[in-house]
Amino acid sequence: MGILTGYRVIDFTSFLSGPLSTCILADLGAEVIRVERPDKKLAGGPYKGGERSYDFSLMRGKKSVTLDAKDPEQHKILVDLISTADALVENFKPGTTKKMGISYEEVIQYNPNICYASISGFGQTGPYSSRGALDLVIEGMSGFMSITGERDGRPLSAGASIADMFAGLHAAIGMLAMLLNRERTGKGQHLDISMLEAMFAVCCENAVTRYLNFGTIAGRIGNDHPANACFSDFPTSDGSIIIAANRDNTYAAMCRALNMEEYINDPRFLTCNDRLERREEIHEIIREHSRKFTTAELDERLRKEGCPAGVINNIKQICEDECINARGMILEVDHKTAGTYKIPNSPLRFSETPVNIKHGAPILGENNREIFGQLGLSKEQIDALLEKQAKVRTMFKDHELD
Amino acid sequence: MGILTGYRVIDFTSFLSGPLSTCILADLGAEVIRVERPDKKLAGGPYKGGERSYDFSLMRGKKSVTLDAKDPEQHKILVDLISTADALVENFKPGTTKKMGISYEEVIQYNPNICYASISGFGQTGPYSSRGALDLVIEGMSGFMSITGERDGRPLSAGASIADMFAGLHAAIGMLAMLLNRERTGKGQHLDISMLEAMFAVCCENAVTRYLNFGTIAGRIGNDHPANACFSDFPTSDGSIIIAANRDNTYAAMCRALNMEEYINDPRFLTCNDRLERREEIHEIIREHSRKFTTAELDERLRKEGCPAGVINNIKQICEDECINARGMILEVDHKTAGTYKIPNSPLRFSETPVNIKHGAPILGENNREIFGQLGLSKEQIDALLEKQAKVRTMFKDHELD
Repeated sequence: MGILTGYRVIDFTSFLSGPLSTCILADLGAEVIRVERPDKKLAGGPYKGGERSYDFSLMRGKKSVTLDAKDPEQHKILVDLISTADALVENFKPGTTKKMGISYEEVIQYNPNICYASISGFGQTGPYSSRGALDLVIEGMSGFMSITGERDGRPLSAGASIADMFAGLHAAIGMLAMLLNRERTGKGQHLDISMLEAMFAVCCENAVTRYLNFGTIAGRIGNDHPANACFSDFPTSDGSIIIAANRDNTYAAMCRALNMEEYINDPRFLTCNDRLERREEIHEIIREHSRKFTTAELDERLRKEGCPAGVINNIKQICEDECINARGMILEVDHKTAGTYKIPNSPLRFSETPVNIKHGAPILGENNREIFGQLGLSKEQIDALLEKQAKVRTMFKDHELD
Repeated sequence: MGILTGYRVIDFTSFLSGPLSTCILADLGAEVIRVERPDKKLAGGPYKGGERSYDFSLMRGKKSVTLDAKDPEQHKILVDLISTADALVENFKPGTTKKMGISYEEVIQYNPNICYASISGFGQTGPYSSRGALDLVIEGMSGFMSITGERDGRPLSAGASIADMFAGLHAAIGMLAMLLNRERTGKGQHLDISMLEAMFAVCCENAVTRYLNFGTIAGRIGNDHPANACFSDFPTSDGSIIIAANRDNTYAAMCRALNMEEYINDPRFLTCNDRLERREEIHEIIREHSRKFTTAELDERLRKEGCPAGVINNIKQICEDECINARGMILEVDHKTAGTYKIPNSPLRFSETPVNIKHGAPILGENNREIFGQLGLSKEQIDALLEKQAKVRTMFKDHELD
């Protein structure tokens, strides 16, 4: 039994922000039913058993039905399906749900207390609401890229689609809040998540607050920290290492680990502020010492002294990491056509209601018969519907842009 | 009335991950009471009216009381306070709550159904649980830095502390899920969030899934996308611009905007896969054309054609952005000593229970008299306690490392 067992969520999402939010709801035990177009095309591989790697993890534990919202007969089935739901998530470009006849205003006519979440690039209202956006556009517009990169380099994006992720995590937060509110008051409502705002308000928050109140425009500073020294990457004899010694006690621990005890009480570097003011000077001294050790040696020495530090793992190394594996963070799940495959487990670790991921991604329409049957369609009606779907390949034209 | 109005959350957090999670709960209407050490030292400015800029936004809407958990008299008050709570969040190094007498096992003796969240670098159990970690350490260990940066450059961190943020957002998700579960079943429980796992499972998920199933170790590729072409930053006559034309229709739109219609049906670049395989070739052609326009011209042209695109704003530019301002994303709040200051608003936009941020960060101990009075202490007892606190400055020694 998961925390959301018994809740049904209708999932009209694509790309990353929407699917991430419903992935979290599915992990928590909700019955998440993806409504996909019968002619869905899979973009961007790699594939295994006909399934996209991209969907392996994001679609786990979900169900899939195929329906064409623009066909009147299928729209009626869609209305029946949405009528049974506690929640709905969509990340179409604003306006698309209206064209499909599943806008919030339409849905509450027959399901007045549904918890309905919309995710878009710039929100459902406002001057940019008609524009499409994808992750990189938001990383650029939000200011995030302007503070990421080398001092003398160009603005850089994150190596993962974090604008999508910040939006998706906020949609999950908002959805849980709406469901909790519905438990307490019986009322549903509409949540409007803008990717730009999630990046601006949360990811760029510190830089934004400094600008709004002090006029400081943050820039790019590589791996240094705007308010801390001895908090960066440093070279070793065989690579580099992260050291995060931004307090007096961890600075002293770092000095001991690096055999540079004489700098602990050096008047030039006595306080955090002293070290921040002379950052390049103390960093150069650290580099002279850190180069004398291998990464593994220095990691061990820093850990023993109690200084926060760590290696820079590549993706293979972190997948083989002792702690990641000891805590069960790699999971094998079943898939109808791809056999078994591996995905990262949920980071939500509850003592009494553990997350239990039951299966991998569904294949397209895997749950058509189960769900359509529940809605009262006979075997013959379902056969006719699926045959009709196989013939038609022109729907959900605006589906692709979130 | 917010969604969480009526819930009381005890907040033992510092740094970013914990305060972000309780900030979201406060935004949703919970009464968040920070328990801070009487001798709390403020690190890292800038300051305004004695308040740290870092706390302006993260501590908004919260209350603050000062208590020394190691003093028996104050520990008793702390127990009385925690007895009144629905939830508790802490991000100490594992083991610290036991030394303070507020571990989950101890708290459930007198508040058996509390929703208790712990955030740490590596989790409450497992081989690394005794290690401290800070954001940059986790960005390095999780694999994130190995996929962020220029092709020929070093591993880079994000310009914001995203490992803290991924952990904090997951703690908020878990807390809302636990509160929802308690509404339905009456039961509380313990949530164990590891920063490393939140980064591994969510932020690095795509790269991790590809490695686990295909053996591909993702590397650094600047602003390019591992699975898409025409999805990067491109130079203009006066700067650069983001173009995200990873579909056939948006590729055609981009070609029209750039006056390079002859490439729409060029057999070399016909499909997404063709363009991905010849990425450098098509990117070079785009660059030749994008350099002929100013950023503003090209942004306008791309938008008109319906191609996702955007400028790379700095922090000042996004704070002055038309859409951010039109949607009320910058808020002025009151503060006891700093007067008013500005912070970004919450990105959670609910139709029926709007987020209503009532005030800025509390000053240290601002709510001592209110909260201690509620717990039955007389004015004389509170006076004596605060006088005692003013004298003692040696507590919460392990407080600082999350």
